[in-house]
Parts: sequence; structure tokens; C-alpha cells
Amino acid sequence: MNGADRLCDVLLANDIDVCFANPGTSEMHFVAALDRKPKMRCVLGLFEGVVTGAADGYGRMADKPAATLLHLGPGLANGLANLHNARRARTPMLNVVGDHATYHLQHDAPLTSDIASLARPMCHWYAETKTPEDIASTTAQAYVAAMTLPGVAVMTLPGDAAWGDLAPAPVERTPLPALPHVSADAIRDAVAALRSGKRVAMLMTGKALRTEGLTIAGRIAARTGLRLLTPQSINRIEHGIGRVPVDKVPYPVDQGVEHLADIDVLLMLGTQVPVAFFAYPGKPGRLIRDDCEVQTLARPGDDLVHALQWIADEVGAKEPPRLVQPGGLADALQPGALTADSVGYAVAKLLPEGAIVCDEAVSSGRKFFKLSENSAPHTYLQLTGGAIGVGIPMAAGAAVACPDRKVIGLQADGSGMYTVQGLWTQARENLDVVTVVFANRSYAILHGEMRNVGVNQFGRNAARMLNLDEPFLDWVTMARGMGVEGGRAETMEDFEKLLRAALGRRGPFLIEAVI
Amino acid sequence: MNGADRLCDVLLANDIDVCFANPGTSEMHFVAALDRKPKMRCVLGLFEGVVTGAADGYGRMADKPAATLLHLGPGLANGLANLHNARRARTPMLNVVGDHATYHLQHDAPLTSDIASLARPMCHWYAETKTPEDIASTTAQAYVAAMTLPGVAVMTLPGDAAWGDLAPAPVERTPLPALPHVSADAIRDAVAALRSGKRVAMLMTGKALRTEGLTIAGRIAARTGLRLLTPQSINRIEHGIGRVPVDKVPYPVDQGVEHLADIDVLLMLGTQVPVAFFAYPGKPGRLIRDDCEVQTLARPGDDLVHALQWIADEVGAKEPPRLVQPGGLADALQPGALTADSVGYAVAKLLPEGAIVCDEAVSSGRKFFKLSENSAPHTYLQLTGGAIGVGIPMAAGAAVACPDRKVIGLQADGSGMYTVQGLWTQARENLDVVTVVFANRSYAILHGEMRNVGVNQFGRNAARMLNLDEPFLDWVTMARGMGVEGGRAETMEDFEKLLRAALGRRGPFLIEAVI
Repeated sequence: MNGADRLCDVLLANDIDVCFANPGTSEMHFVAALDRKPKMRCVLGLFEGVVTGAADGYGRMADKPAATLLHLGPGLANGLANLHNARRARTPMLNVVGDHATYHLQHDAPLTSDIASLARPMCHWYAETKTPEDIASTTAQAYVAAMTLPGVAVMTLPGDAAWGDLAPAPVERTPLPALPHVSADAIRDAVAALRSGKRVAMLMTGKALRTEGLTIAGRIAARTGLRLLTPQSINRIEHGIGRVPVDKVPYPVDQGVEHLADIDVLLMLGTQVPVAFFAYPGKPGRLIRDDCEVQTLARPGDDLVHALQWIADEVGAKEPPRLVQPGGLADALQPGALTADSVGYAVAKLLPEGAIVCDEAVSSGRKFFKLSENSAPHTYLQLTGGAIGVGIPMAAGAAVACPDRKVIGLQADGSGMYTVQGLWTQARENLDVVTVVFANRSYAILHGEMRNVGVNQFGRNAARMLNLDEPFLDWVTMARGMGVEGGRAETMEDFEKLLRAALGRRGPFLIEAVI
Repeated sequence: MNGADRLCDVLLANDIDVCFANPGTSEMHFVAALDRKPKMRCVLGLFEGVVTGAADGYGRMADKPAATLLHLGPGLANGLANLHNARRARTPMLNVVGDHATYHLQHDAPLTSDIASLARPMCHWYAETKTPEDIASTTAQAYVAAMTLPGVAVMTLPGDAAWGDLAPAPVERTPLPALPHVSADAIRDAVAALRSGKRVAMLMTGKALRTEGLTIAGRIAARTGLRLLTPQSINRIEHGIGRVPVDKVPYPVDQGVEHLADIDVLLMLGTQVPVAFFAYPGKPGRLIRDDCEVQTLARPGDDLVHALQWIADEVGAKEPPRLVQPGGLADALQPGALTADSVGYAVAKLLPEGAIVCDEAVSSGRKFFKLSENSAPHTYLQLTGGAIGVGIPMAAGAAVACPDRKVIGLQADGSGMYTVQGLWTQARENLDVVTVVFANRSYAILHGEMRNVGVNQFGRNAARMLNLDEPFLDWVTMARGMGVEGGRAETMEDFEKLLRAALGRRGPFLIEAVI
């Protein structure tokens, strides 16, 4: 056996059995080793942004890392934007970056580059493998990092480490340390705040947004008046009827400030202080009041659910939480031309129970999260890091992780073009994904931002940079070219018919909603 | 005026009047400033790899940089693979990366990342702007770096530097230093080698491969027996009938070694020692003999043509060079099924005079360069850094630089999918590009590499990672979805008809050659 075989063994021993891949010459021994492991499912992306975006969606839904296989520095570079999103989401992910044989680096061959410098900004953990003997421990450490930090681990695999001979040896599952509990001091401070009469909110993420965490948080809220918040961008939440409702911090700065204006104490549960996505002249960077007290209740790798239960016990929160009740989407779909809001309403209303929503609708989707509180119970994933182009791959990865659940991608058109190649992976793997493209045919968010900087009339250059017209993108045709069926809707009647049909079948389907 | 206006003024004063762009919120003041400059041509790419690849093609043909506009660290990351190629090509390029306002970085907003760490591996020159007052000098330095190193310059543009007020001031053209001449010692050593009776070869790049440089080199060759070589990957060469023929170092290691085996002295004219693209067990890294003497005649930023003329004068090379004579492509096109070679032959035979060939045919194009020596006079550009996905954007950029010349893209299908969005830019700008897709429906190069590592029978995983099938990519349909007309050819009769039609019209056209 060789180093690449050992790498596969350590992955499989830790139940990492999906590898999203785009290999190159330096990874041929790894490909050959994967080929000897039928338990490993290798999923090809036709661009590395598809590979890493799919691994993000997979990791969020599977609660364990997928492996990725990336080809040297440039292959990693192509995947970095979606690693950035995964880093912000703290998605468990184990990226294997092939590199030249160690002794070949001195020659500065054409594909040589500084992998460490490229990787470090976009990952939580990085290590370079040097020899075949290193591989087992490096891979195990990468797995532990991915699971416990939690987050994005990157390791290199030089050609000579991959092809170097090793004696066969048994590989055990790598033990994971228990998640750290938060300190008694942190709990005491939080409980004191909750009893102080001050207006307290908790900004939640990670496991706190699953059903168990939300239920405990909802009980604390029912007992103490605690306000439950999520960041502007949510890595994953259990959402819809029967779940505990939470408020999402709005994206526009002014709305964000207003939303958080009455908070005296903010408890950070695995999150950071909410800030403006971008700076604007004369507007604040932090969205909370300057005199708002910030308590770091838990850090991202801590046991968030344990912290919630501890607080619930301290405050005697035994009441049932307030849950979302049915009936919030009673209005009939309105016939006629489509708008972003009417499409969002139709999706929220028709969303099947158990669906996974992958939201990269950007400016077209601002109202969806609140609306879908009233949808059938579902899981909601969102673009987290602001690096557009995660939607189509994330939906693919979520569908690989959960083959029995319907995945609904809410996709802005400008963002969708970044990793449009992901549609082919949806077709190749026959993934059960319905992609709804909000075809506003512009970078609509930037039209608003131009108005924010005082430009209301566009000249030729601004129009040429901010509009996706001349020619329009024909999404249905592009999708067909990659093996995904679809249809275009210009009215609600069209859209409802297409969406019902797509929900009633299995396999990938794309609806271009012209808004 | 503000900092962004000043940036535009310095660009325009230096004749940088094309900006390939994909803007985001942090660049709105730059977009607004560009919008006030009708002399600037802004070209939108729907993904940053398109932006940087187009700037590469543009810079190679225009001999001056295009500007690019990239959105923060993730936007830069998306463009890095093609910056890597441009770095290897030493293409003049001036990349402007928008960043958060300087005072906003402390908040670690979602799109914050370490731009310096991301940029440095893929550029020759990097600087961070801090204030509006910095902008003029930083931009001027970036321009000088792009022109003289020559190569890839990256500068940041923080939001507050872009929007900060400046007093209007005149902007002068930035003076460029003369290119350094090579030393008399280097010339003396080269001439001594040429007179030594040893077998001498010169590995050439950059301006040495233009008509003037090639002609002088050809005269030296006629006088001394000097052998003329180019690297495996060529940034730009004037090629075809009536030009001086040069040999390209072959890609496969064994062929490369054989090709260079009889060289006693290798003169490096702006190049580095030829090495294996990848390491293979038991094969050499350097392709020249261990006892081959290497002389660095000139470095990349030196005046290469001056060095050639100096040598020509020293050796008294007054003979006319040997030129490629007409008649080398006399064979008729063979009817029947297409192969990579027959498609390449047809393109070489029908290539119109003055065409620009952008070669990312990879494994399908290995024979094309030698064949096209016998084509009508043309310019040839190639993927230089091995980071696939430059072809479609490079063709777009070359067409922007040279609107009166036909651009022919030779495009491998796997590589083409990396930046397929570039077809939309070709349609949007109505660029005169014919893209020939070599649809072998696999990563064919990796099939060969798998055989090199001893795997002849693929299992499911290898097949799933190396074949672009189930479903096939329908290139004609994908192109139509982005506004580019096209046709599919399965026989030479189809192909010839489509190619002649495409050459006889203006505007983008795609031919899917099923091989």
C-alpha cells in the first residue's frame, strides 16, 4: 500500500465516505487509491468552486466532513471563495490539496505556488504533509480539527507522499474529544443579566439552531423574556411550523441598527458581534448600541446546547416554548406577473415538509426567511460569508448528504452564474434539487448600493457593469446544456405549475422565474 | 473629486482605457467614478476568472495593462487561477481589489479576509492603499511594475480611500524607465558559446518571439547554427508562413528530455530552465542534461530584442533567416469522423491571415503548434501556467484588444467548463471569436496520467472523476443560453462547413467538435 491508500483508510475509518473532487496529474495516486475503495463515493465538480461549495452543503447537513480533492495551488484558489463561506459557516470540511512531489518544488514548475499563503486566510486549520508516514496522523488531526473547532481543515498531499510505500497497518477510528462546556462564570453572568430586568437578547448559531437547542432557548425565552436572534446569515436552522421562531438580524445597516436598538445585553452563543456587512460613510460599523453590554456566553467550538440547558436549569425554564402555529400563509397565490416577493411567497407556501432550503437569493430573498417561518417544517441553509456562488453547489452537497429530502435552491441569477457548472453535478448524480432562479437580470443589490452612494442615473459604464442584459441569460437553455430539465415562468400561473410539477418528481429541475 | 476619480485619471493618463470588472458593494465609488469616464471601456465578466483571464489575453495583445476590478478577498480569490497564468506569462496587468474601508476591517465583517496573503503568490507586485492621497502614487507604481517587471500588479482600494475627497489636480503620464540592457559579460559568454563548436540552443520568450526578435534570432541561427526554442507554454508568438520557425519543448517528460538531449549550452532569454510539469517516480525534474551549461543571457524584464541584436552584431549575422515556406498543409481535409488531430489540421489549414489563436486545447492540441507553423501568418497565445480555464476569457480579452482580427479559441472541454461564463462576455461585447471545443468528454490528459501510474482498468470512482459523461455536456446549447450561436460537428464535412461559415461572419460562434 502507499500513502494515498493510508489517507483513504483514515478517512473511511472516520466515516468520511464522500469525496467531492476535481483531480489533476499530481493526484493520480490518490485517484487510484480512491478507486480501490468502493465505500468511498467520489463526486466530480467541473470547477473547484463547485467542489468546495458542495462540501459546505454536505457538511452542514451531515454534521461530518466530506473530503475534497483539489489540484495544487490554482485548484485550491478556485475553491477558496466557497471555503471562505464554509469558514464563516464553521462547516466541518477536510480538504486535501495535491502538491508536487516535495523534491520537485525546487524547480518552480508551472503549477507551483505558495499553497500555505493561499489556504490560510480561508481555513481554520492547515498542515503540510511531507512523507507517507505523516499521512495517518495529519489526516486524523485534520478530522479532529474539522469536527471540533469546528471548521475548515486543509492538508496538502505531495505526490511522493501519496505514492510512497507503506507497510499495511490497521487504522482505528480517531477519538474525538468532548466539546468543551462553557464556564460557570459565563452562565452566572448570563443568568444575572436575564434576572436584571434589562432587555437581553441572545445571538445564536451552530447546534443551538437545531430543534433541541431552539426548544431549550424557547423555554428560556418564555420564562425570562429573552429575545432570540440569529446573525444576518445562517449556516443552518430548523425552521417552520412547530419550531421556535427566531429573528434574523437584517442586512441593511439602518434596519439592523433599528432592530437591535432596544437591546441592553447581548449574549453571544458561538457568534460574534453583529456588524455592518460593508462600511458606508457616516454609518456605524457595529449594529448594536455603543452602551450595549456584550457577553461571550460560548465560543464556536463549545457545547452550545449544554450551555442553553444549563441556563434553562438555572432560571427554572420549564414552560413550553412558543412555537410557530399553522395558518400564516393562508393567502392564495396571486395570478399575474412575478415579483421576487410573490415567488418567495409561493415557495414558502408550497414548501414540502422536510425540505432543505438553500438560500442564495440575495436581494430577491430578503423576506423569505420570515415568511418561511410559516412553512412546513424544514431546514434552512444560507450563503454565510458573502462570497456569492455557493448556492448551486451547496444544494448539490445537501442533496448528497440527504438523498431522501427535497432540496430547494433559491438562487439569485448573478450569483448563480459564478458556479453554474454545479448544475452538471446535480444532473450527473441525479440529485433531488429544484433550483428557483430569481431572474432579475441585474446585480440588483448593487443598484441599491449605487443609490446609496448618490448615483441615481447610470451612464453606460455603470449600466454595463451592473446589468445582466444584452443578452439575457437563458437559464433553462443553459441548464438543459448541462443535463438539467427546466422551465421558464413569467406569470404566477406558470410558476405554480412548474413548481408543483418539480416538487412532484425526483431529480434536478430548474425554474427560471423572470421577475 | 474623490480617490476613485483620481485612480481613473491615472489609469487614463497612462492609456489604460479598458477595465475588466466584476464589482461589489465596496467598489461602488469606483464604479461611479468609472461611470464618469466615457473614455474607459468597462467589460463585465460574470465570474472573476473571466475578468482576470480576459485581462491576460488583452495584455498579451495590447502590450499594455488592462485594469481589473475585483471585489475583496473572495473576488480576488476567484480570479487567482488566471492571475497565476498571467504571472507565468508575465502579462502586464493592473488589478484593483476593492477592500473594506480601513476602519471597518477591525470588525471582521463577513467578507473580510487577508488580501495580501491571497494575492502575493499569484502576482509580481502588491501594494495596499490606505488614503485617497496614496492613490495616485500607488497606481502609478502599479503601472510601472506591470510594464517593466513585466507582470501582474495588484493594489487594494479601500472604500474610504475611494470615497475620500481630493482637490482636483492634473495627472501626467507616468514615465517608464528604459528596459535594462543585458550585460556585456552575458553577451560575451553567449558569443563564446556560439563560437565554441558546442551545440547551443536559446530558450526564448516575451518580445523575443515577436517578428523583429524572431527575425534577428533567425539570422543568428543562420550564421551560427544556434537552435531556437520556446518553453512548453508560450505567452505569445508570431507564427506561420513567412515567420522564423522555432521548436517548442514538448510536454511529456520523456519527449522533453529527448528533445533537449543534444544541447551542450542553453541560453536563457527571459526564461527559466525547462522542467517537468509534474514529478513522476523515477523521472527527472530538469529536462536538460545534467552537464548542459546554462547561461542566463537575459532576465524577463530586460530588453530581449536589444540582446539579440547585440549578439547578431557580434557574430556578424547578416544572412536572412530561414523562414517557413508555403505548402506545408497541402493535404485535403479527410472526410469522416473527427479526431483531435484532424480538427487541428483543419483549423491550421483554414486559419485566416492575421488571426489570433488562443490555445487551451491541452491534450487535444499537442500537434497544433507545429502544424500551424504552416498556417497563414498569425499570432499564437497559449495557456501558460497550467491552471486550466483561461481559454474562453483569454480569447475575449484578445478580441477586445484587437477588434479587427479574428480570434480562434482552441478549447478543451474540461478546461472550458472552468470559465464557461466567458461565453456571455463574448456575446455581450459581440467579440469576433470562434471557439472550437474539442469535445472528448473526458479529462483525457488524466487518462494518460493514470496509465502512467499503472492503472489501466478504471473502477467506478476513477471513471466518475475522469470522464465528462452521464450526461454529456451540450456545448451548443450552453452557448446558446449565453447568447453565443454555434453548431455541433461529428464529421469533417460538418466541421469544415461550420468553420468556414464562422470564419465568414463576425461575432462569437462556437463549434463543438465531437472527437
